[in-house]
Amino acid sequence: MKIAVYDDYRIGLVQGDTVRDATAALPAFLDALPAQRMNWLIAHWADTAQALQQAAESAAAIPLSQVTLLPPNPAPRHVFAAPANYRKHIGELGSRAVTQGGRSAREQGFFLKAPGSLVGAGGAIELPRGSARRFDHESELAVIIGKPARDVPREEAMDYVFGYACLIDATMRIEKGVAEEERSMRKSFAGFTPLGPWLVTADEVPEPQALANRLWVNGELRQSANTAEMIVGIAELIELVSSVLPLQPGDVIATGTPEGVGPFAPGDRVRIAIEGVGDMTLDVRERAVRAPRPY
Amino acid sequence: MKIAVYDDYRIGLVQGDTVRDATAALPAFLDALPAQRMNWLIAHWADTAQALQQAAESAAAIPLSQVTLLPPNPAPRHVFAAPANYRKHIGELGSRAVTQGGRSAREQGFFLKAPGSLVGAGGAIELPRGSARRFDHESELAVIIGKPARDVPREEAMDYVFGYACLIDATMRIEKGVAEEERSMRKSFAGFTPLGPWLVTADEVPEPQALANRLWVNGELRQSANTAEMIVGIAELIELVSSVLPLQPGDVIATGTPEGVGPFAPGDRVRIAIEGVGDMTLDVRERAVRAPRPY
Repeated sequence: MKIAVYDDYRIGLVQGDTVRDATAALPAFLDALPAQRMNWLIAHWADTAQALQQAAESAAAIPLSQVTLLPPNPAPRHVFAAPANYRKHIGELGSRAVTQGGRSAREQGFFLKAPGSLVGAGGAIELPRGSARRFDHESELAVIIGKPARDVPREEAMDYVFGYACLIDATMRIEKGVAEEERSMRKSFAGFTPLGPWLVTADEVPEPQALANRLWVNGELRQSANTAEMIVGIAELIELVSSVLPLQPGDVIATGTPEGVGPFAPGDRVRIAIEGVGDMTLDVRERAVRAPRPY
Repeated sequence: MKIAVYDDYRIGLVQGDTVRDATAALPAFLDALPAQRMNWLIAHWADTAQALQQAAESAAAIPLSQVTLLPPNPAPRHVFAAPANYRKHIGELGSRAVTQGGRSAREQGFFLKAPGSLVGAGGAIELPRGSARRFDHESELAVIIGKPARDVPREEAMDYVFGYACLIDATMRIEKGVAEEERSMRKSFAGFTPLGPWLVTADEVPEPQALANRLWVNGELRQSANTAEMIVGIAELIELVSSVLPLQPGDVIATGTPEGVGPFAPGDRVRIAIEGVGDMTLDVRERAVRAPRPY
């Protein structure tokens, strides 16, 4: 199933170039907290999936071009992220290395991105107005967690995956010795975590560690790898995070990026495509407002 | 007003050593998502505060000793945190410095803690089972945000504060060259962010930058400072964070710690007291379970 969130947090099923509204399958109390619909749906999936499909079947097919796609979970409790996590990638950034001396998530652990940095395929990547800093793209497979997960050994970890989506991890680079803000801040500007275009349930992605992961800027291929090249795989990442704290249904894990990380600037168009998961393109632009504390 | 969250996410008002249940003042739809009650209450404060007080007045006074205090917001969207942020503190940690060469939040920005690391005054700080690592306490004033806040200049920032609470920022220290995990992970173990014992609304804390901030381990005073010594004050922290992304009602900002950061171990009791805000003591213990990936 391909589940999209769109417009005013409606939940729909995607078929081809259309989406069918299935929001009616969810309890009415969620209308008061519509951003929580996906967390609730995922937590109650076993009891709701059938009603969701039935609601979609009796709904009109709306062209995707007529809706605004939001992140397929607009309000996860957590967005965990692995540092650069593909075999070819380690070391390419030199002194500005994401990987701090060639170390992977196995040594570095995860970092956090703010859920408030999420944006859907219908949004844009907005850079701070008037900034002279460098901003980079990182192309990542996102895992959406399906069940409460605590102390899950890697052998059982894939049972806790609800689905997958494309994720761009946008980053403001440090300038060594000049500007070295915390990583979790540099990656948490509003709009710095495009997630989408929808989520694909795990049953439709039988081999998540064998997917092409590609990213283009203005049509030029910048990153091209396969999830088979991950250093710390999805199951081990779930083991890692769930050893630190409980994961909740709807939590997102960004699984790290391959080589080819590079800059983008206002006016660029960034496209990410992950095989069998999705394909989306977002505009990069400058914020309309200059913040009281510019970067 | 002193607002506590306790037992099964009930909302109560604290008077002396008692709490009065005011949950009935909140809409019934929140019963399905009780962890969201505080986010909703804060977002709808102007329309709900009076009903909350009326509900409490007609409720029985329950001794606080008979309830389990949870974090006064159990499910904030974000927990932002400033690095060490008091004038005397900078530099004391040497090569393991929180402050990376004496730089403050003005240069380093904020980091994130996982909301899933929160625990209330009725809980405990649980350390990974069998760990040989060092774990430290940091004594902090927490600010709870009251209104959506984006691009807020520091001159207006205090209007966005809903209230205050005590916060212990527990941390697994790095071992330089041996184990240097991401900061946001080292601070996000479940139970590493005690928040409480309740929140005190801003009207009862007229001078938040003039409060004694103290922490004891087993009765021995370890940290003692005054929020007047903050390097980056509350208003500037709100300006900083809201320049990066929108703050939401219920979001938490941990405002950084003074000198005296030091280790604790299973069996210790940690007490934090912030003048006019609260006083709470938590046990430090080892987790009952050894995680599949121990630290």
